[in-house]
Amino acid sequence: MSVTAAQGFRASGVVAGLKPSGRPDLALVVNDGPQRSAAAVFTSNRVEAAPVTWSRQVVADGRLDAVVLNSGGANACTGPPGFLDTHRTAEAVAETLGVSAGDVAVCSTGLIGERLPMDRLLAAIAPAADALGPDGEAAATAIMTTDTVPKQATAEGDGFVVGGMAKGAGMLAPALATMLVVLTTDAEAEPGELDAVLREACAVTFDRIDSDGCQSTNDTVLLLASGASGVRPARRDLSAAVTAVCADLARQLIGDAEGAAHDIAIEIRSAASESDALEVARAIARNNLFKTAIFGNDPNWGRVVAAVGTTAAEFDPTQLDVTVNGVQVCRQCGVGEDRSLVDLTPREVHVAVDLHAGEHTATVWTNDLTHDYVHENSAYST
Amino acid sequence: MSVTAAQGFRASGVVAGLKPSGRPDLALVVNDGPQRSAAAVFTSNRVEAAPVTWSRQVVADGRLDAVVLNSGGANACTGPPGFLDTHRTAEAVAETLGVSAGDVAVCSTGLIGERLPMDRLLAAIAPAADALGPDGEAAATAIMTTDTVPKQATAEGDGFVVGGMAKGAGMLAPALATMLVVLTTDAEAEPGELDAVLREACAVTFDRIDSDGCQSTNDTVLLLASGASGVRPARRDLSAAVTAVCADLARQLIGDAEGAAHDIAIEIRSAASESDALEVARAIARNNLFKTAIFGNDPNWGRVVAAVGTTAAEFDPTQLDVTVNGVQVCRQCGVGEDRSLVDLTPREVHVAVDLHAGEHTATVWTNDLTHDYVHENSAYST
Repeated sequence: MSVTAAQGFRASGVVAGLKPSGRPDLALVVNDGPQRSAAAVFTSNRVEAAPVTWSRQVVADGRLDAVVLNSGGANACTGPPGFLDTHRTAEAVAETLGVSAGDVAVCSTGLIGERLPMDRLLAAIAPAADALGPDGEAAATAIMTTDTVPKQATAEGDGFVVGGMAKGAGMLAPALATMLVVLTTDAEAEPGELDAVLREACAVTFDRIDSDGCQSTNDTVLLLASGASGVRPARRDLSAAVTAVCADLARQLIGDAEGAAHDIAIEIRSAASESDALEVARAIARNNLFKTAIFGNDPNWGRVVAAVGTTAAEFDPTQLDVTVNGVQVCRQCGVGEDRSLVDLTPREVHVAVDLHAGEHTATVWTNDLTHDYVHENSAYST
Repeated sequence: MSVTAAQGFRASGVVAGLKPSGRPDLALVVNDGPQRSAAAVFTSNRVEAAPVTWSRQVVADGRLDAVVLNSGGANACTGPPGFLDTHRTAEAVAETLGVSAGDVAVCSTGLIGERLPMDRLLAAIAPAADALGPDGEAAATAIMTTDTVPKQATAEGDGFVVGGMAKGAGMLAPALATMLVVLTTDAEAEPGELDAVLREACAVTFDRIDSDGCQSTNDTVLLLASGASGVRPARRDLSAAVTAVCADLARQLIGDAEGAAHDIAIEIRSAASESDALEVARAIARNNLFKTAIFGNDPNWGRVVAAVGTTAAEFDPTQLDVTVNGVQVCRQCGVGEDRSLVDLTPREVHVAVDLHAGEHTATVWTNDLTHDYVHENSAYST
C-alpha cells in the first residue's frame, strides 16, 4: 500500500536492466479512474532534464492516465535525442495501456549526461504493465537510487485516502532536488484544486528539507486523483491529507539522506516574517561548519550565530538566543548554559534560534556533513 | 620580510599562552612613520566580534600606529565584557609603545564564545614590544590557527614596497571570513586613497576566494602606510602593488585551506555581466556535490551545470559549455569530449564554464570537500 492505497490505482516495479546492480529500475503507476485529474510541481533548476520538460507539457491540461518512472539514469543534459527518448517512452507506455501519450508523465533519476539504454527500457514496459496490481511496494523500490529503504506514506480523510511514494537521498533542497514523488488520491477533485493543494503542501514540506543545499535537474512531484471514492472533500480536508503525506515522505527523505548521521530540525522563533525565519533557517542548514560540528557531536553555537549573521533578516545581533536539544547554550549572543550539558548522541537534533524580532516561526530540516557523505558523493559516478 | 618589507615597520610574534599548544599566539605590527595613514575592510557578518567593532572605530579617522593580533580566541559573542577586553588590550599596547589607544587596531582569531585569558594576554605585550624588529616571520607565525604555513607576500613598485601577512585556512568566503590580513607600504598616501585602493584590491582577490561558503565574525584586512620611502606613487601604481600582494596572499590561503586536496579555479566566460559571472562561479564553488566529485577526481560536469541552473544569471540552458582541465566534457549542455581524458590528479584544477551570453568574465577560487575537511571541522572545538 502507498501509491496504491487510494482506490482506482495500480502500480508495478520491474527490472529493466538500467542499473548495473540488476535491481528493479522501472516503475509504473496507472490511474483507472473514473476521474483522471492531475497536478504537478517541478524543479526550479533552469537546467531541467528531458522528462521534466515532457511531463510539464503533458500535465498542463490537468490530466494524467499513467506515470512511468526509471532509476539508473537521469536523462538530463542529453539534448534533443534525450527528449526523443522520453517521448518514445511515453508513446510505448501509452500504446501498451491503450491511452494517449499526452496523458503519460515520465520521471527519471540517476546520472546526468548519459543517454538511457532505450532498448532495455522499452522492452521492460510490457512486463511492467503485466505486473500492475494493488501493491505499491515494488514501484517504490524500483525508483530507489542511493536510497536505503523505499519511502511510502498514506493518510485517510473522511471517506477518501491519499497515498504516496518518494525517492531521494541527497540533493534535497528548497524548490526540490533529485526527488521523485507520486501522490494518489481517490477523492474527487478538479485539476485546479489539486494544483493549489499540491503547491501549498510542497511549500511547507518538501521545500523545507535541505539535505545539502544542492538542487537537481529532475525533481518532480505528481498528484493524481481518481475520484474512485465518490467523495468530494472540502478543500481544507484534502489539503490536510495531502500535506500529511508530503510531510511524512519529507521526513523519511531526510532520515535516509546520503551518509547522514543526524537529522537536524532548525526552528527559527520570533522572526519578523515567515520569509525571514526561512532565510535564517536555510543559512544555518547550508553552513558546512555547522553541519560538520553536529557530525562531531559538538554544540558549536558560534557557528550557528555566524551563519545567522550572514542573513538580511530583521534581528538585533546582541539579542540572539540559541538552544540545542533543550539547552540554551547561547543567550543574548553570549555564553549561556554549559555546552557540556548538550547530548548530541541521538540521531535527531533540535536547534532553536530566537530572533526576538516578531511572531513568526519556521522549521527547516537538514542533515549533518559526514565522512560517509563525502565518500558516497565522491565515488558516485565511478 | 613581508609585513616588514616596507620601510618604517617593525613586527614581532611571541607566546602569550592563549593556545593550549604553547605555540606563538600574539603578534604586534608597528608603523614608525613618518606617516601613519591607514584603511581597513571588515567582515560583512552582522554578528561581529569585539575586536572588529573596536578596530572599525579606531581606523575611522584614517590613522593607525600599531596593530595587535592574537590567535587562540576570537573574542566573538562575548558581550560587553569581551569588548572591554579588546579595549584593555589596545590600552596596554598604547601605553607600552607610547601612542594613543585610539590608534591601535586589535584582531583576534580562534573559537567563538569564550573570553580571552586577559592576564596572559596583557603580560605578553611588553615582551612583544621588546621583540619588535625587521623580521615579519614571527608575526605571521603567531597569527596562525589551523594554518599549516605562515603566509607572506611582497610587491615592489617604482620606489616603494608593499608587503603583507595573512592567516586563514577555512571559512573563507566572499565578503571575507576568519581571515586576518595586515598590509604595509612605505608609499606616501592619504587615508582616502588607501581606502579606495584596498577596497578595489579586496573585491578582486579576497572576495573571490570561497573555501567553504562560510563567513566569519572576525575578518579584518588592514593597510598601513608609513610614507618612509618618500615616494608618492600614482594611484594606479599603488593599486597594482596592493592588488598583487592581496592576490598572492589569497592564493596562499586557498592553497592551505583546511583538509583540502584540490585548489579549484572556476572561470566563468562570456557572461552578460561581471556580477552574473560571479554569481555563477559562487554557485559552483559552494556546491557540495561538485566539491566532493573533485575530491574523488571525478569530472562530474552534470553537477556543474546543475549548479549553474540554480542561478538567475543570463544564459540559455541549452548552450552551456563546461571545460575541466582543458577537456570540454560538456558541449551545449550535452555530452562533449570523453570525460576519461580529464586528469584530476594535480592539486590545481581549472573549471571553465562558457555562458555564451556576453563578454564578461570572472574567476573564483575554491577547494574540494574532503574527509579531512569533515574531520578537522567536526573536531575543532573539542
